[in-house]
Amino acid sequence: MQNLIFTNDVEAAIERLTHSAAPNVTVYVADVNTARFAFGQERLVVIPDGDSGKSLETVNRVWEAFEDFGVTRHSLIINLGGGMVTDLGGFAAATFKRGVRFVNVPTTLLGAVDAAVGGKTGFNFGGLKNEIGAFALASDVIISTRYFDTLPEREMKSGFAEVVKHAMLSDRSEFLRLLDHDFSAPINHNDLLERLRHSVQVKVDIVARDPNEQGERKALNLGHTVGHAFESLAMQRGKPVPHGYAVAWGLVTEAVLSHMRLGFPGEDVHRLGHFVRDNYRDFPFTCDDYDDLLDLMRHDKKSRAGEITCTLLTTIGDYRIDQTITPDDITAALDILRDHLGL
Amino acid sequence: MQNLIFTNDVEAAIERLTHSAAPNVTVYVADVNTARFAFGQERLVVIPDGDSGKSLETVNRVWEAFEDFGVTRHSLIINLGGGMVTDLGGFAAATFKRGVRFVNVPTTLLGAVDAAVGGKTGFNFGGLKNEIGAFALASDVIISTRYFDTLPEREMKSGFAEVVKHAMLSDRSEFLRLLDHDFSAPINHNDLLERLRHSVQVKVDIVARDPNEQGERKALNLGHTVGHAFESLAMQRGKPVPHGYAVAWGLVTEAVLSHMRLGFPGEDVHRLGHFVRDNYRDFPFTCDDYDDLLDLMRHDKKSRAGEITCTLLTTIGDYRIDQTITPDDITAALDILRDHLGL
Repeated sequence: MQNLIFTNDVEAAIERLTHSAAPNVTVYVADVNTARFAFGQERLVVIPDGDSGKSLETVNRVWEAFEDFGVTRHSLIINLGGGMVTDLGGFAAATFKRGVRFVNVPTTLLGAVDAAVGGKTGFNFGGLKNEIGAFALASDVIISTRYFDTLPEREMKSGFAEVVKHAMLSDRSEFLRLLDHDFSAPINHNDLLERLRHSVQVKVDIVARDPNEQGERKALNLGHTVGHAFESLAMQRGKPVPHGYAVAWGLVTEAVLSHMRLGFPGEDVHRLGHFVRDNYRDFPFTCDDYDDLLDLMRHDKKSRAGEITCTLLTTIGDYRIDQTITPDDITAALDILRDHLGL
Repeated sequence: MQNLIFTNDVEAAIERLTHSAAPNVTVYVADVNTARFAFGQERLVVIPDGDSGKSLETVNRVWEAFEDFGVTRHSLIINLGGGMVTDLGGFAAATFKRGVRFVNVPTTLLGAVDAAVGGKTGFNFGGLKNEIGAFALASDVIISTRYFDTLPEREMKSGFAEVVKHAMLSDRSEFLRLLDHDFSAPINHNDLLERLRHSVQVKVDIVARDPNEQGERKALNLGHTVGHAFESLAMQRGKPVPHGYAVAWGLVTEAVLSHMRLGFPGEDVHRLGHFVRDNYRDFPFTCDDYDDLLDLMRHDKKSRAGEITCTLLTTIGDYRIDQTITPDDITAALDILRDHLGL
């Protein structure tokens, strides 16, 4: 199990962890943007930011740095950064001497609610995202909002889509509370930390029941079967969209599919649609793109034999995994998504 | 849990496995010597033999081959070879798309009783053996003696030392039976397969109780604290010795230590000493090497803070892990080892 620590006094939390673990060596892994948060640390590995640096070459350099710093099985690795740092640093630690203890300190909202917890680690290979990796849990995850004041609004919105997803999988009152969120207001740190506590727990509970993605963990794929297709097509066209924007559009589409197939309440589809129109409106696709999107869904890593499956809801908090959907249903749902967005 | 299959009809066993698993693609990994056993297979990755090829470059090439062959999470990897093939091929499979099912088919005695079972996978890095790796179990291990007729006698003896170790951890009648083994006689396949069945089960039972080497698994380190020092020193001097020879000498030394510290019966020390003198006599060290050997034991991957610890026995079948031993005790035991060897 992962030890989750919700605090904005990150230094004190790290101090307590290193005091109790008594590692022979502590090494920080950060990227060029987050290295400043590790200012003054004796042993620091700085890796590139951006997806193109999430490579075997970078992993190799991290392993070499671990050798140079004398890392052993009694050492501690602290990954300080967004999803790329916790994914790649986690993989490097999990495979060094067959496993060194590592702690994740996510510095982005998306990292805090998604990449830093749940044990998926890895890097890109052969042009494919996260193609090489391992399931390996950080021993501890320190979740704070203190790094978010300087995050661009688009990054906050990107992470927030995953927070909404977790509420849709678990709790309608939390879902409704989130839809009132105002991204133009200054961050209320105490309130946001409470929202994170709720959100992360949803993921942790599901992962605990299915760590290696044999079944129930697919619940976390809500919004992602369609969302990944948006993300991949935008990437192929050289105009990438933030992950969470693709998820937000995917959540509306799959809520529509849930309504069509499982009677998910129409009023909640509408509430979600309004929220996404207000905050994630710059949808770059038209009906001319439907064939390309369907093709991408058929070739998703999690699909088998060309069938399109996704996670749907009967109501907020009640999910059904492995729902097979037809191209006609998806086409209809994409039309309704575009209506919701006012396009 | 690993499914263990003891049979000399390897093709039929593989046929049954692929029939039930129904993989979309089956890929064989073999080295330049064992590739002939995969003759006629459509998808085969051939890697170098020898420890210098157990590298990140080779892992990279295996991952690239998996991409080329269209390996997915619904594929099957078959590692056909000695410890290097099962270690490296296992790591490549365990990390490709965060884990593809793999089957080990060991072709050496040492591989069958040691590397192929228990889930340790990995490769050499920064000049250190198995420095990068993961704990990942082969779903199935097909254990046969059919590849052993052409194994050099030194390789048979090397593997046999691990068979003796497993008997020392579990069963005195098996231990005594093994000491009667005659390496100059032709292989009795039925009998040897029975010995393997007994031996592998000892390892599997211990690993099942402690898969990630937190405690009890250290029992399998019997003979290895001292044995690794022999192996490393011989390697440093450019005159490597087979792993199992170093283990055989380590078993005698640690049996002597067990007698000194825990009252392990002297008659069993003598029986073991005779067997090792008869079969593993070419011991390349003198009393001038004791300081170097002690230094190596202090820096073993499993030691902490310079203390030397090992697994000792009170009697055959009853082990005690984490026994701290002094340099003086080891020096005395090494003298007695050399007496047993008639040196």
